[in-house]
Amino acid sequence: MAAEPNQPYIEEGLVFQPKFDASGLLTCVATDAATGDVLMVAHMNEEALRKTIASGEAWYYSRSRQKLWHKGESSGHIQRVTEIRMDCDQDAIWLRVEQLGGASCHTGRHSCFYRALSAGEQGGVTVSFVDANRVFDPAAVYKKGH
Amino acid sequence: MAAEPNQPYIEEGLVFQPKFDASGLLTCVATDAATGDVLMVAHMNEEALRKTIASGEAWYYSRSRQKLWHKGESSGHIQRVTEIRMDCDQDAIWLRVEQLGGASCHTGRHSCFYRALSAGEQGGVTVSFVDANRVFDPAAVYKKGH
Repeated sequence: MAAEPNQPYIEEGLVFQPKFDASGLLTCVATDAATGDVLMVAHMNEEALRKTIASGEAWYYSRSRQKLWHKGESSGHIQRVTEIRMDCDQDAIWLRVEQLGGASCHTGRHSCFYRALSAGEQGGVTVSFVDANRVFDPAAVYKKGH
Repeated sequence: MAAEPNQPYIEEGLVFQPKFDASGLLTCVATDAATGDVLMVAHMNEEALRKTIASGEAWYYSRSRQKLWHKGESSGHIQRVTEIRMDCDQDAIWLRVEQLGGASCHTGRHSCFYRALSAGEQGGVTVSFVDANRVFDPAAVYKKGH
């Protein structure tokens, strides 16, 4: 978070003490190991983090479905983890991944971040699509019942 | 979050409808525009987001200090924003930035993510420093009283 001083042990130590929030979660950023593009922001509970470290594939905790989530379990689009980093205050995780199938977003796109924001007229915000081509058709990949 | 279907308007539209959480915040990831390295994960309230879009410099909301935070206001290490993206469900922001002074972390390092995690013995986790050289001395930059 780049904010709180006076945490020498947490910040300068080599002891793993993840700081889960009130819901038991950490924030996790996955980037494309080849390009550095941010693919998605998601959350991990302790089990997801441990499974990710142990398996080398990304596991998250789905807040909407309230369950552990092996990324790619429905779509086949697994994330192979090439590096795991944690931040200064141990409440955020960065995964460098190889995205199998090329798409991390459930909309079928490479990244969840397929829209750019810029300053519009009269203090407004302009939204535009960027790198928004679909790699797969979500209707074909996520069958009913999933 | 790559999870919730059936949000065609939020996901496929060009209308800016940021989904702030119960605390009025979005999650924000800042990456180095040149290298793709994740520099930090922080939060933005509506004012921080609007100031970032309007000014081209990164503003966040500090949860620990409970105040708007112009990144670099104490250290001089401003983040110049080269691109702003939002994710599919409009609750996360990705900033590509040029980090003035080279260090984004309050510990004096380039990135807040200066430690790697890997599988240790007996199911444990091994922590190791990576890219952990200090660009500045925090004690010299953050004077007492700040």
